[in-house]
Amino acid sequence: MGIFVGIDLGGTNIKIGCFDSEIKLICKTSVPTEAEMGPKVVIERIAETIGKLLREGGFSIKDVAAVGLGCPGPARYREGIIESATNLPKFKDTPIRQMLEDKLGKPVVFENDANVACWGEYVLGAGMGVKDMVFFTLGTGIGGGIISGGKLLAGSGDNAAELGHIIVYPDGRRCNCGQRGCVEAYASASNTAKRAIEAGAESSLKKVLKEKGKITSRDVYEHLKRGDGLAKEITDGTAKALAILCVNMLHTTEPKRIVFAGGMIAAGDILLDRIRDYFNEQIWSLKKETVEICFATLGEDAGIIGAAALAKQIS
Amino acid sequence: MGIFVGIDLGGTNIKIGCFDSEIKLICKTSVPTEAEMGPKVVIERIAETIGKLLREGGFSIKDVAAVGLGCPGPARYREGIIESATNLPKFKDTPIRQMLEDKLGKPVVFENDANVACWGEYVLGAGMGVKDMVFFTLGTGIGGGIISGGKLLAGSGDNAAELGHIIVYPDGRRCNCGQRGCVEAYASASNTAKRAIEAGAESSLKKVLKEKGKITSRDVYEHLKRGDGLAKEITDGTAKALAILCVNMLHTTEPKRIVFAGGMIAAGDILLDRIRDYFNEQIWSLKKETVEICFATLGEDAGIIGAAALAKQIS
Repeated sequence: MGIFVGIDLGGTNIKIGCFDSEIKLICKTSVPTEAEMGPKVVIERIAETIGKLLREGGFSIKDVAAVGLGCPGPARYREGIIESATNLPKFKDTPIRQMLEDKLGKPVVFENDANVACWGEYVLGAGMGVKDMVFFTLGTGIGGGIISGGKLLAGSGDNAAELGHIIVYPDGRRCNCGQRGCVEAYASASNTAKRAIEAGAESSLKKVLKEKGKITSRDVYEHLKRGDGLAKEITDGTAKALAILCVNMLHTTEPKRIVFAGGMIAAGDILLDRIRDYFNEQIWSLKKETVEICFATLGEDAGIIGAAALAKQIS
Repeated sequence: MGIFVGIDLGGTNIKIGCFDSEIKLICKTSVPTEAEMGPKVVIERIAETIGKLLREGGFSIKDVAAVGLGCPGPARYREGIIESATNLPKFKDTPIRQMLEDKLGKPVVFENDANVACWGEYVLGAGMGVKDMVFFTLGTGIGGGIISGGKLLAGSGDNAAELGHIIVYPDGRRCNCGQRGCVEAYASASNTAKRAIEAGAESSLKKVLKEKGKITSRDVYEHLKRGDGLAKEITDGTAKALAILCVNMLHTTEPKRIVFAGGMIAAGDILLDRIRDYFNEQIWSLKKETVEICFATLGEDAGIIGAAALAKQIS
């Protein structure tokens, strides 16, 4: 009794975790999404995987109190409907919450994937002890979540906190979303790497590009640590865009803590310090600001933890 | 019985209104702040003015249920303390709420002036019928307010929604706050006028500058209506900065309605249409957005109405 299941449904993988009533991880797994098979097959696989995972832990579906499901937006979360997720093209207008509830016979809470990870960090990770937090995942794209007064900010149509698409450089780089100058077009892991590829400057990264045919954000910060000039310039650009984002968030929802997560944070303090430097350089002088800028602590489990914690809230 | 008093304390004038329990205006007045006399004298004047206003309406202080006070930030609103308001220099570390409560013997609610006007528009003006709204006042500076899920967003230190200081052009024009590229540095009434003065282009506005020694935002939109090229260019710059702000707010708190107030909206549809055009040009194509961008409807009374409506909430 009192098991909470957290599901993080991505375009590539589905992560699933079983948690006790204190949201302590009992067991977890990851399976390929195979999104091209469509929602019915994927729901089937989710249910099978949960069943198997529960059995391995000595439980059955009867022990489950509620299920949390995180999924990329935009979607009509309150209605439980995926509208047109970029990474799940066959899921157009899919009533995924109802389908999963019918399949499992358990209540399902449905939320944006970044919001779910944000909630995980808020209740059990880097956000502990504050009531107002902003959260960013720096991955292929940039996702976001906002906690205001201890609650996830939902927005009028459940799509608040699409923070990767805040414009930091008007008329700047084209973003996948159609806008120009989004922070995602500069500071996501993939765009940080892309900016390095596009740059003309001499750099030890050029050898990587020649040998592997590509540069990743990991290459950028590894060469940064070795003192490469271009890697420093690219990282500075990423840090500055993120610092402007921090300034703008402070003047909007006024968080006490701003938390960065995702692949990019493997760059470590060298990136975090640059973000803080640019923030201090850009922020107003009207009053002293004490917002903390830090990295997430839950790693890749934030999504399943947050989904399970949200499930606990509804049960 | 059941009178609510709304006070809008500005650097130049204090506006005071008496409202019935439906927040219908009974009577109002405006007196000079004379902020240089310090908080004690100003509180005295506020109390006297309220007393006089009540008598004129056939009431006395006994009939007052509660009082709302709006005041420029940053301040520690929950604690009731003005820290260091730019326009009220002698009010440093003034426990203004307590002072007013002691003087009047009535409960006082204390809020940011833009938040108070935002609340007024939300409950009785342009925000009626929605639960998520963003509000901007375009005056000497740009103030802001955010309603999320039917509540004023407060922030971790009561200074959320300082929306005039959102950076729209990094490394851009210097703002009074010390930052660079704030939307206020482009799109406030005073900076719209300033940009026209600084511009080199030939324009019918040059004659105004020569004759009056200055250009106001009113001059800009009057010459805009007469077809002046520079006035159009300056207005376009204002509209574009505000449109970027609208895009960024949509991706942050996802309002259903964005409301502009303040002196600048006298420019009329010619400005509003340009903001909407730029918004449609800048916004993403991931999904159709239905946010409404409109002007406030309560005019200069929004502050006293909102303050009285907030007072009603606490009583």
